[in-house]
Amino acid sequence: MPSNRRKFIGQSFASLAGITATAMVPTHIFGHNLHNTSRPEEIILQPNKPSNTKESIRFSVIGLNHGHIYGMVDSLINGGGNLVAVYAKEPELLQQFTKRYPKAKIAKSENEIIDDNSIQLVASAAIPVERAPIGIRVMQSGKDFMADKPGILTLEQLKEVKKVQKETKRIYSIMYSERLGNPASVKAGELVSAGAIGKVVQTIGLGPHRMRPESRPDWFFDPKKAGGILCDIGSHQCDQFLFYTNSKQADVNFSQIGNFNNSDNPVYQDFGDMSVRSAHATGYIRIDWFTPEGLGTWGDGRTFILGTDGYIEMRKYIDIAGKEGGNHLFLVNQKETKYYDCSNIYMPYGEQLVNDVVHRTETAMTQEHCFLATELALKGQKMAHKLNV
Amino acid sequence: MPSNRRKFIGQSFASLAGITATAMVPTHIFGHNLHNTSRPEEIILQPNKPSNTKESIRFSVIGLNHGHIYGMVDSLINGGGNLVAVYAKEPELLQQFTKRYPKAKIAKSENEIIDDNSIQLVASAAIPVERAPIGIRVMQSGKDFMADKPGILTLEQLKEVKKVQKETKRIYSIMYSERLGNPASVKAGELVSAGAIGKVVQTIGLGPHRMRPESRPDWFFDPKKAGGILCDIGSHQCDQFLFYTNSKQADVNFSQIGNFNNSDNPVYQDFGDMSVRSAHATGYIRIDWFTPEGLGTWGDGRTFILGTDGYIEMRKYIDIAGKEGGNHLFLVNQKETKYYDCSNIYMPYGEQLVNDVVHRTETAMTQEHCFLATELALKGQKMAHKLNV
Repeated sequence: MPSNRRKFIGQSFASLAGITATAMVPTHIFGHNLHNTSRPEEIILQPNKPSNTKESIRFSVIGLNHGHIYGMVDSLINGGGNLVAVYAKEPELLQQFTKRYPKAKIAKSENEIIDDNSIQLVASAAIPVERAPIGIRVMQSGKDFMADKPGILTLEQLKEVKKVQKETKRIYSIMYSERLGNPASVKAGELVSAGAIGKVVQTIGLGPHRMRPESRPDWFFDPKKAGGILCDIGSHQCDQFLFYTNSKQADVNFSQIGNFNNSDNPVYQDFGDMSVRSAHATGYIRIDWFTPEGLGTWGDGRTFILGTDGYIEMRKYIDIAGKEGGNHLFLVNQKETKYYDCSNIYMPYGEQLVNDVVHRTETAMTQEHCFLATELALKGQKMAHKLNV
Repeated sequence: MPSNRRKFIGQSFASLAGITATAMVPTHIFGHNLHNTSRPEEIILQPNKPSNTKESIRFSVIGLNHGHIYGMVDSLINGGGNLVAVYAKEPELLQQFTKRYPKAKIAKSENEIIDDNSIQLVASAAIPVERAPIGIRVMQSGKDFMADKPGILTLEQLKEVKKVQKETKRIYSIMYSERLGNPASVKAGELVSAGAIGKVVQTIGLGPHRMRPESRPDWFFDPKKAGGILCDIGSHQCDQFLFYTNSKQADVNFSQIGNFNNSDNPVYQDFGDMSVRSAHATGYIRIDWFTPEGLGTWGDGRTFILGTDGYIEMRKYIDIAGKEGGNHLFLVNQKETKYYDCSNIYMPYGEQLVNDVVHRTETAMTQEHCFLATELALKGQKMAHKLNV
């Protein structure tokens, strides 16, 4: 095919993919198209408003074992929730909580909250293995439930939670905060659904975390109490895969867990990765506890969303040696490269959940999505090939 | 364990991994440690010198079907090679080549080059499926061989090439240019071997490419002539995994190939990914042909090297909405976050290969490494789950 070949010759130097040995080739051959960062438009997103007609609910808290509870409570309060009471076994955790929320009544027992019929929702960041049993008791008492992630620790717990949820028609919501509580992630969802990058074919989620073992309670190091690495921080990533690819069913292709640098604790997992797939998209997830001390924050979390007509990268918490702060979103599509500073935008999860409690809707997250994200993480954890674990 | 728990409470807000809902939580709770990009040291690396005692070889070229040949030839010339002759079937490709290298003699046939006993090495960027057969004839004539990637197209070709290489003791080198021809990749190798990030436990290689179908010859779209996506551009990534993890053996855990946006050409693959593993490290590789027109170069190639004490990210060809140019290397370890501009550094591959030809050594790349990288890519290609292909 001579005509094709002629075109091939003419364009091969400027555009041919794979010519990477630029330092070996005079620059004029490539023109300025290679290794060129144009100055793209930078957009600082302005705060968008929550809706004016905010609903209101009464909620309480059971279990304060992870600091995530503060983000969860604030999200509910911002969304219209009134915090009524709190129960926790640990006096020191209670003290810290009531210092921040002085109006919260300290309940004497879990049952005091469960038995209070004026309460519409219970939020919990108990030790992970206790969350599903608490959620089941909460749903059976006629209330909705909001769990920190991992919201469910085993496939057996998942089965039981699904059964009770179906019977009681209560909400069992898991706060996958790396999406629901991150402004860049919220903006990415808007861009994807507006078609900014065409058809989404893949997500990559990198979720590195800093460990600081001295800051962690005992249960953190016991997979039976905290879940393995894929069950725990992997569940965030499964949520993001399902959300950005708009997948309603999916399965795990492959997974592995590793213990590369914690041989003193042989059951601990400091590395995990997995591949997931739906009918129309795939996802890769990598999680680790290796964030080094020289990073200015707890983890260089990244999300890449690949579409047929472009891609999005989120540098969620830091842009190493780049832009200040967090909440960075980069969009590249057929038209341009664009940067969005998402720091100011409103995250609707709390308000949506409060609304769902009042109106029995599924706007914050469908129940199906909530459970499927966890199911993927649990399956990945269960089938994982073990590297030195 | 009360003492642990006390520490947990005290430090949980500043350092606890997973508190991502920052916008929900007052900033003073986190302090300035979250979402903070310190201004890290920026290092512009100065050109390092090739060695003074350069060896010299006579080399020729057979096959000009991919523009990579220019990077290959320049690399050899910079390393001390004297270009003698060239053979190609296509007059238009020859014309372009001799315009750039006017001293190269045009050979009338492949045999004219094969039979010239003064030639020590032959370089080839023939149509991929022809490279192994050419390489075999070259080695059998007593010469060394340097192939563009993919250097070998099937496991059968690999078996034959390995056999002849063993018999003849000639060099069969494949120019994995995304490492050997990229300054940031060379610098990363130095940092890793100096222990800058501890023990390397994983690599992630993202190799997006722009297609521009009109610029591609017919063979490009035929996997039987060009190899599938994992065999072709995946082989670069397998090379990088083996190199940065210092793995001498490895296997493929999982692979898949996809055709998401080229349904008019049902055998073509525009997406592929795979997971590889050695005894002490793992690797994830993703390849695609979706680079959108709004990117300032042909592909936003990235490499992440994860170690127990830090990580490296290479933004090889562009830093979207960030620093100008290419060849960016970011290092984060227990001490600091550092940025290296690697644009000026010397890439030793050509010189090392010329030396290897003269001294019968393996400094540019061991033969074993060269074949294993290709074997991983070929296995990944062969066992790949098919998504719409």
